[in-house]
Amino acid sequence: MKALHFTGNKTFDLQEVDHQPVLPGEVRLKVAYCGVCGTDVHIYHGAMAQRLSLPQVIGHEVSGEIDAVGEGVTGWQPGDRVTVRPLKPGPEMSVDNGVRHIGQNLKFIGIDTPGGMQQYWNVPAYTLHRLPDQLPLPIGALIEPLAVACHDVRLGDVKPGENVVIIGGGPIGMLVALVAKEKGANVLISEVNPTRLKLAESLKLATVNPKETDLVACVAEFTTGAMADVVFEVSGVQAGVTAMTALARVRGRIVMVAIHAEPKAVDLFRFFWRELKLIGARVYEPEDFEEAIALATSGSLPLDALITQVSPLADAQAVFETIDHNPAGMKYLLQCDA
Amino acid sequence: MKALHFTGNKTFDLQEVDHQPVLPGEVRLKVAYCGVCGTDVHIYHGAMAQRLSLPQVIGHEVSGEIDAVGEGVTGWQPGDRVTVRPLKPGPEMSVDNGVRHIGQNLKFIGIDTPGGMQQYWNVPAYTLHRLPDQLPLPIGALIEPLAVACHDVRLGDVKPGENVVIIGGGPIGMLVALVAKEKGANVLISEVNPTRLKLAESLKLATVNPKETDLVACVAEFTTGAMADVVFEVSGVQAGVTAMTALARVRGRIVMVAIHAEPKAVDLFRFFWRELKLIGARVYEPEDFEEAIALATSGSLPLDALITQVSPLADAQAVFETIDHNPAGMKYLLQCDA
Repeated sequence: MKALHFTGNKTFDLQEVDHQPVLPGEVRLKVAYCGVCGTDVHIYHGAMAQRLSLPQVIGHEVSGEIDAVGEGVTGWQPGDRVTVRPLKPGPEMSVDNGVRHIGQNLKFIGIDTPGGMQQYWNVPAYTLHRLPDQLPLPIGALIEPLAVACHDVRLGDVKPGENVVIIGGGPIGMLVALVAKEKGANVLISEVNPTRLKLAESLKLATVNPKETDLVACVAEFTTGAMADVVFEVSGVQAGVTAMTALARVRGRIVMVAIHAEPKAVDLFRFFWRELKLIGARVYEPEDFEEAIALATSGSLPLDALITQVSPLADAQAVFETIDHNPAGMKYLLQCDA
Repeated sequence: MKALHFTGNKTFDLQEVDHQPVLPGEVRLKVAYCGVCGTDVHIYHGAMAQRLSLPQVIGHEVSGEIDAVGEGVTGWQPGDRVTVRPLKPGPEMSVDNGVRHIGQNLKFIGIDTPGGMQQYWNVPAYTLHRLPDQLPLPIGALIEPLAVACHDVRLGDVKPGENVVIIGGGPIGMLVALVAKEKGANVLISEVNPTRLKLAESLKLATVNPKETDLVACVAEFTTGAMADVVFEVSGVQAGVTAMTALARVRGRIVMVAIHAEPKAVDLFRFFWRELKLIGARVYEPEDFEEAIALATSGSLPLDALITQVSPLADAQAVFETIDHNPAGMKYLLQCDA
């Protein structure tokens, strides 16, 4: 079987390797597609090196079929179409507050342990979610990022008729927008990249380019003065952090989706003055995967339009180089059974 | 009657003035006590000058008796013992989100309109809350800051048995600590002033001086590793903002009580990583006043111990100068009927 080894220094190496034995509690997947996440691109750039064991297979946005079932696994059989919730909780600590999906000892599969950019992949059976027959496997590889969006929207408690502003129109921002719109919210995406703006418009999402238009004035107009009930900060930059507090109405909620590696200047006065809420949201819980699968299966979201390119696993090196030079792209999928 | 006029430039002037006519919907109070709020001290220092009309009477932490009742006022009569919720909501705007106590057109009585540092004070009847006969009037002047603490604790949703850390042990921090403890929480106050630390200890509150002890390690020990369910940031300084995210457990709540005039560096990564919540809390709603009165009347809170000094209104200038030179003091009351 073929496995894509990341060897550091922006380099991937496709190697012929043996199948791993299927341990008790595990299944072996025949991987169909594996999406490239922003995190994978960060790893390609050298980030999170201390969490990897090079050479390592990465990737965690996977669809596929079960190839073999390990001892003690019930409810699954070869041929079942699945996606993977790539979280491996560790021993629980009291600081975890009973929240299993982000515990201190959590391992993220595809970073802390081998990932899905290979032909066959062994994962714990408890990470699996079933994909309905009518859900195409390329869309199955979008379930993981869509589950992120479902988690963000759920923690933001978005309700029908609410005004929602998404700051940042990359893949996650766009998915948050689509999910929030599906909940009946009035959604506006703020994004600076013209290609992404065009894509959002083609998906019938309202857009604003804050480099060309005053964002606060635009949101005031979009909401007839009410301002945003919910703001999603998905940009990861100071301008987004500065905007988030300016856009929220009294008791508005701000969901922190972006990863801000460094502390940022935050208008805490505005939190006090308008009794705003900031809500951190990270990865997903099982119900978010179930919701993502149901949404994708319903066909109501234009997920096809978010797939920028599908390439064979053998072309992974070129794909990562393309992403590096194409900040406007959305989801790139690697076809692992090609 | 005597009225204390703030004339700017750190100067008060006690003047003999006429009673104001009682307008329809108003009552005239015979003021018993008026506490000095941190906001009053800020005004004394020249802050919020654009909101004042000098010379102006300030002060909003009041207890007293009704002296006269205006046309159309029902349910109140002369002699009733009351305190005042000093909020005058203005025309509602859609950005207010139906939240009346912090609307855009809110006027704060005692800043935007004349305050209670005078012998007689006219206020809208809807601002009144009844004080039980057994509640001493000096304690009645603490109801307003106690209502702030009740609001903060309510918005923080503090539950019995939860671990709560208060960053900053001034009057509001101390009241938040007492209210949270009354709710059954395990409370720790972080404060740097030795006099305030001693006072907190005398009130049987656990304390830590973060200048002498590692705060994160102390909270870990205090909570047996669980860390804080709720953190109240009442310090208003960067060190408090830096600590607040470090002290909260997974899905912990951080209540922003302090007024941070300038944006501060916030560890947004920690909000994401631990799914923390930041909750802005400002002033109070009617139910917070009712809770504060019930708590004060029950006698379960050591409120007497928070009264640093009671002085006649005529000594106000000296009182403000004392506060300026005594950062360890708690509540200073002006006796307005002396």
